[in-house]
Parts: sequence; C-alpha cells; structure tokens
Amino acid sequence: MNSSSDGALQITILSKEAKQIASAILDKMGNETKHCPTEFKNLDIVVASNNPEDVNKDNVEVLLADPNLAAKVIPYCHNLKWCQSTWAGNAPLFRLDKTDYQLTGLKGVFGELMREYVFAYLLQFARNIPAFSNNQSKQPPVWQAESRQPLNGLTLGIMGLGNIGQALIPVAHAFGMKVIGMSRSASKVEGTEAMYPTSQLSAFAKRADHVVNLMPDTEQTKNLLSDNFFQHLKPHSIFINAGRGSAVDDRALLDALNNNKLHHAVLDVFRQEPLPPEHAFWHHPKVSITAHTAAESQPEDVAQVFLNNAQRFNNGLPLLYKLDFAKGY
Amino acid sequence: MNSSSDGALQITILSKEAKQIASAILDKMGNETKHCPTEFKNLDIVVASNNPEDVNKDNVEVLLADPNLAAKVIPYCHNLKWCQSTWAGNAPLFRLDKTDYQLTGLKGVFGELMREYVFAYLLQFARNIPAFSNNQSKQPPVWQAESRQPLNGLTLGIMGLGNIGQALIPVAHAFGMKVIGMSRSASKVEGTEAMYPTSQLSAFAKRADHVVNLMPDTEQTKNLLSDNFFQHLKPHSIFINAGRGSAVDDRALLDALNNNKLHHAVLDVFRQEPLPPEHAFWHHPKVSITAHTAAESQPEDVAQVFLNNAQRFNNGLPLLYKLDFAKGY
Repeated sequence: MNSSSDGALQITILSKEAKQIASAILDKMGNETKHCPTEFKNLDIVVASNNPEDVNKDNVEVLLADPNLAAKVIPYCHNLKWCQSTWAGNAPLFRLDKTDYQLTGLKGVFGELMREYVFAYLLQFARNIPAFSNNQSKQPPVWQAESRQPLNGLTLGIMGLGNIGQALIPVAHAFGMKVIGMSRSASKVEGTEAMYPTSQLSAFAKRADHVVNLMPDTEQTKNLLSDNFFQHLKPHSIFINAGRGSAVDDRALLDALNNNKLHHAVLDVFRQEPLPPEHAFWHHPKVSITAHTAAESQPEDVAQVFLNNAQRFNNGLPLLYKLDFAKGY
Repeated sequence: MNSSSDGALQITILSKEAKQIASAILDKMGNETKHCPTEFKNLDIVVASNNPEDVNKDNVEVLLADPNLAAKVIPYCHNLKWCQSTWAGNAPLFRLDKTDYQLTGLKGVFGELMREYVFAYLLQFARNIPAFSNNQSKQPPVWQAESRQPLNGLTLGIMGLGNIGQALIPVAHAFGMKVIGMSRSASKVEGTEAMYPTSQLSAFAKRADHVVNLMPDTEQTKNLLSDNFFQHLKPHSIFINAGRGSAVDDRALLDALNNNKLHHAVLDVFRQEPLPPEHAFWHHPKVSITAHTAAESQPEDVAQVFLNNAQRFNNGLPLLYKLDFAKGY
C-alpha cells in the first residue's frame, strides 16, 4: 500500500504550508546545484494539503504535519509508523492516546536562524547601514563616511543560555567579541567569560556592550527587565529581545531609550502579539520591530529536517529529534 | 627633554584627525569600563594638530602621524626614535632619506573591519531587514513575516585570499557557510573547500551563492568581472565589491542586475571615486553604495594600535607592524 512499484517512500504532508514544503522537498531532491541537496530521492508525495479531509487515513505510514492538524488525523491512521512535526512544540500530539508511532520534532534549525537574526541587527548598527542608505537616497546622492561602532572587542551579554543562546557564542567569538551570560543557575557555560545569576542583573548590564534576551517565559523572568536593567546599559548598547515579551517592562525600555541610556532596541516578541498598531514601539525611531520571526522556520528548513530523517527512516537508522510521549518533549 | 618629571612618554600627534585620535587615546587610558582599555597610561600628548608648523621638531622622539604630514617634519626631527603611521600605505616616508628611526604601519585592523562590513550586508539580505523596516514605517504598521534566505548552508566565494580575505573564513564557517576561493595562483588556503584560478571564473561563479571581491588592482584583475562572471551568478546571489573598482565592468553588472542574474550588489569601490552623482549605480534599487569605507580605520583603531605599540616601546620590546625602509613595505 505505501510503497510505489519502484519502492519509493510514500509520504503525506498536512500543513498550512503544505504546498511550499512539498515544493522545497522536490527542489532539494531534484536540483544538484542548489545548496543542501539531499542524497535521498526515493520518495513520492501522495498528498500535500492543509485539509485533514484530504488525507487517506488508512494508507498513511509517514506523515509530515503541523501538530494541530496532525492531531485531527493521527487517531485514525492505523498504519502510521512515523510523524515528523513541522514545529518545535507538540502539545496537541502529546494529548492523544495514540503513541504507537515515532514522533520527531523540528529541531536543529532555531540556533542557526537566531544567530543570523541577532548578528544581522548588531552589524546593521555596527556599520551604520541606515546612514549610508540614507546618503544614497538623497538627490544628489552623498558620498560620505559615517560613524561606526565595530563589534570587535565588545562584550555580548546573552540572557538565557540554552541551545539557542549557546549557538550565538561561536559567532560572537568569530567577530572578536567577548561573551558573558545570565541564567537562573549561573552555572558555567563554555565560551563565556562570566555567568551572572538574575539577582546580579545590574552588574550584568553594566559589563555588557550589547544584550540579547532569549530567556523563556517563566515566573522568574516576568517583568525582570525594568529600570534596574535598562538604566545600566551604555549609550552605544543595542538591546535585542527575541525571548518573550513578558520579560520586558515596556515603559522602562521607552524611558531608557528616550534618555539615551541605550542606542537602539530590536524587538521580536511582545506582551501582546501582533503588537497593537497604537503601541509606542511601532514608530519610535530607536526601535526596530520584527513579527516574532527571529527563529521562525521556513518550508526549506522543514524540508531539510524531514529529508535527513526520511533517509534514516528508509535505512532503518534511529531518527533525529525523536520525542518522548512519556516526558512530553 | 622628552620625558616629563614623572617619566611619562611624550608624544606628538600630526594628523588631519589629530583631535579625534588624541581623544580616543585619552578615552582608552582613562576609562576602565570602556571596551579595549589599555594598561598603558604613562603618556603625555604634547601636541595634537593637523599643522606641521605646530610641531616642535627638536623635541619629537615619538610621532603618531599621517604619512603625508609626517614627511614634512621628519627630516628635521633629529631626535626621532619611532613614528607610528596612521595609514597602511607609507610611500611618502619611504621617499625620504632619513631612515634612522623605527617606522610602524597601521595593520591588524583591516580584516576585522572587513568581516563586519561583508556580513552586515549579507545578513541584511538574509534577514530581509529592509522589508521589516518598511512594514514598520507604514501607517498603520504591518505585522507580517517576510521572506528570508539564510546564510546557513550556502557557499561564500571569496576573490582574493590575502590577510583580509582570509579573515572572512572563520566568520563564514561560524554561520555554517562553505567557502570557496579564487586567486591568481589558486594555491590551497586553509578553510576553503576549493580554490579556482582566475581562468576558471565562470565555474567559480556557478558554484558560489554569494561572492566578495577583495582582489587588488593589478593587470590581471582589471575588467576581470564582466559578463562571463555576472551572467553565472544566481538569482539569490549578493555580489560585494570591496577590492578595487577597476575589476568590475559596470555595464555588465547593471545588465545582470536588470536581468535578475543576481539579487543585489554592494559596492564600496568604483572606477572613479567619489562615484559621480550621475552614475547609474547611485539610484539603482538593487545596488547599495558605501564610500570606500569598508575597511576604513577610525581614530579608535589608530589609538588602539598606537597604545599597544607605545607599551612595547616603553618596555623595550620589538614594535608590531614595523616597516622595512629597504623593501618599502
């Protein structure tokens, strides 16, 4: 049933981005010159849809799916062997009774995405790209050196040193930056010059040149970043929040920006999302806003993780990023 | 004569940016919390001027100077022991007869600056910063994910693998990029997957996702980058020219941009500088222009190199970046 005449792996894609994921899979299989081609080509896409009704549930052995959509079909997929989720969080699937299949999460992409986000913004200010861009748009255009603030030699402060936070460290080092960290335990992390507990927030802020917050939303982090933090940053500091909006006291951040306690804030997460149109952050000249997209995976990422695992599945190897139904992660 | 009562090193600064350099030196000596503070504080700035007339030539033992201005006073500085140049190129000083002093160049800063320039622009497009910035400026503002093209997994092509070009390699690797190189000799460079001679230009262009030109201005590189290069780039390619303007056939680059043979060009160097206001590059939507500033040292860089060397000078250690009057570099 689930192998075509040539023995190809039959897969079903159920996702709001099913078409884009299918296209990315075919692209990676078909195009040798494209970056990250896969060696694994023995695969047929039977269904690619955003509608659970389109899935022929009896036939599904391999499912690539958004967990909320997958939860609607998995109870009826009696032949299911493996489901690759398109998300990191899979609560809808852990709530089901059915656990007699392999469930794999989307991992191994968030650190790679986050490091590009963080350094894209740090370097934009380091090199003063907006000023050069503005010079270029003038009539007549302006040929002029603009001030810059190299990253080389500065200290990056990272709040939250999980896998994603740690992924920033080698990049910071490659740019000649030092790294300090803050976490609840303040336990040593390789590549950091010092670790601070949250109780030493202002000492941490004083030592860092730029700060990235990646802490999760917990009781400890709620409202943690207030005057006691922002007032101790430096006039050249960039503050990036790509953790959770609940960590930041918006009023304290605006006060600090308006009083030149820091140079700029780059915000990807907010107390309310989407950020309401009337919020003062939107049109503040010292705030850059992104739409909770810092580490948002794209169809190409999903396709790559899936193909790597599909090759392992076909060869009977253990799957990557396998989730544990008992633990719930 | 040249030591104050407390034995401090007496220095003379002669530069069009003398005030800024003096200020940067004092800043680094006086401010412990500032990044890159110096341990060396035993120093007095006797003169800081852009006018050779202000220099008390008999008294100068240590000179920190732009080479064109230094050339006007050095023949009369009979007690000169050391001159730290503020530039990399020092032809005006090599033309003088006087060679009985130590001359040091400004080095060790260009690779650090160039890697920030190159990745600032690569990441700007990788993360589509202009689109998010545009969304933010709208009324009402737009909360929306925008397309991106991660660097992770892509191949960076570097043309010209001297010290500056090689400084890009560890950063590319930190972002998960592969590196290929092009040079006259095509001899192996550590960290590259492959090296191409200039005769295999189109094969090099086909394999790279993004390309940075850092080749010097030589007979071999003049007009090298023409249709045979630009027509083989990819629709998502960023081309960065921070080498010399003479390498690029401007017409061929514009044709390729207009025909979607590449995504964007970032240009720091031009056949004529400043770039004439009427040049088509200025207002082309797929061209970003900087003012030959990619690796332009700033007063802070000069101050840092000088202070490192001043500490060595005071301790009788060999100076860094010492130039050879016989060789002329």
